Amino acid sequence: MPNLKLEIEYDGSGYCGWQVQHPRKNQKTIQDTIEKALRQILRERVRLIASGRSDAGVHAFAQVANFHTRVNIPLDKLQRGLNSLLPQDIVVKKITEANPHFHSRFDAKSKVYRYTILNRPYPAAIRRNDVYHYRFPLDVKLMRKEAQALLGRHNFSAFAASGSKSKDAVRSIKAIKVVKDGDCIHIEAEADGFLYNMARNITGTLIEIGRGRFPKGSMKRILAGRDRRLAGPTAPAQGLCLVKVRY
Amino acid sequence: MPNLKLEIEYDGSGYCGWQVQHPRKNQKTIQDTIEKALRQILRERVRLIASGRSDAGVHAFAQVANFHTRVNIPLDKLQRGLNSLLPQDIVVKKITEANPHFHSRFDAKSKVYRYTILNRPYPAAIRRNDVYHYRFPLDVKLMRKEAQALLGRHNFSAFAASGSKSKDAVRSIKAIKVVKDGDCIHIEAEADGFLYNMARNITGTLIEIGRGRFPKGSMKRILAGRDRRLAGPTAPAQGLCLVKVRY
Repeated sequence: MPNLKLEIEYDGSGYCGWQVQHPRKNQKTIQDTIEKALRQILRERVRLIASGRSDAGVHAFAQVANFHTRVNIPLDKLQRGLNSLLPQDIVVKKITEANPHFHSRFDAKSKVYRYTILNRPYPAAIRRNDVYHYRFPLDVKLMRKEAQALLGRHNFSAFAASGSKSKDAVRSIKAIKVVKDGDCIHIEAEADGFLYNMARNITGTLIEIGRGRFPKGSMKRILAGRDRRLAGPTAPAQGLCLVKVRY
Repeated sequence: MPNLKLEIEYDGSGYCGWQVQHPRKNQKTIQDTIEKALRQILRERVRLIASGRSDAGVHAFAQVANFHTRVNIPLDKLQRGLNSLLPQDIVVKKITEANPHFHSRFDAKSKVYRYTILNRPYPAAIRRNDVYHYRFPLDVKLMRKEAQALLGRHNFSAFAASGSKSKDAVRSIKAIKVVKDGDCIHIEAEADGFLYNMARNITGTLIEIGRGRFPKGSMKRILAGRDRRLAGPTAPAQGLCLVKVRY
């Protein structure tokens, strides 16, 4: 029974996330949309397991998901079939056969998220769905410097969604980069895992820092405080993209 | 009577172009949309003059347009007002006061157009509206080499839309670059002017060349032939973007 591994790109703007706990009517999820297309091709109900859920409006450049199937089908044929059935905002980039025990979520060693801020007085017309427009000038150097306090193994409660259920809030950030690219600022973080809203809360805090609203050394202090109320607001979903899952 | 110069970014996907000769009902144009917003703010009918018309589906990173107005209004206030009234796919990046005789079209010295081909087996989900997906591998080096035949002053009839009215088809291409950037190929051309469909016909021809369908030296021969039927097909509008107008 083949265990197939998919690499998926999606524009999350039109979806209420990868999957929701209690979906209401007319709520499209990315998982449902792909499962439906798989069912149409394979004539079999399958269950997709992703590396993690992404929120409503969050994008993925390379989400990873796997499923087991009884059907034997050439993988290039399956990929073409999926891409012709799927809506334009979801694309399957790659399908490979994984070992029978591979699990997209449990086997993930680290994930890379990138947040893109468009930092100029006027918004974007062309790339308006995958950046967050912030009109006031940000001090990128200061953001980069303060972000370094997050490197390593810490309790990230300060950046977990309030009321989140993760009992263990300890995660390891392996790398964090703050890069200026024209009018855009990219914040790219690699961690062994992200708490719910963690990437967006870190971004919201870095924006407050870049705006000069928090004194120097704030990031270190906020992290140590383990209190969500000390950190900045949650940055909007549309600027966030799951760039890579490493196994 | 101030002559105001606008720099405008737009996603052309939802419009039937900058302006159409004989608009039908329900055909949205970019010019009309901006003129309507200007009228609402200035309480005066104005006529926008752009550097040139762009086709349905073509984007602009920095289209230039100007208009005369009797109203005196702070330019930053006008810009903010416009951006709050305009739909999200049109953004005014800059407004300056030009000299009274400045004319966006007649005074343009050159224009830079960029065409973006996404060259990989599967399409894009995130940037699907501003690239043209071409699934078969293209020889970028060969495209770059052949493109050089277009440099300089030539009669570009071979790349003008069939049935186009431009009597004089002589234009000067000042620069042409074919650049690989990840899965994308950018074709960027600067000319003192472009015939109708010229940028898209050059791109279509370069794609045929990159695909190995035309022998070496074809670009030079096609250009010299001055016959539209010798060149490749017109590449789709969505990959094209007006990047810069120089004065």
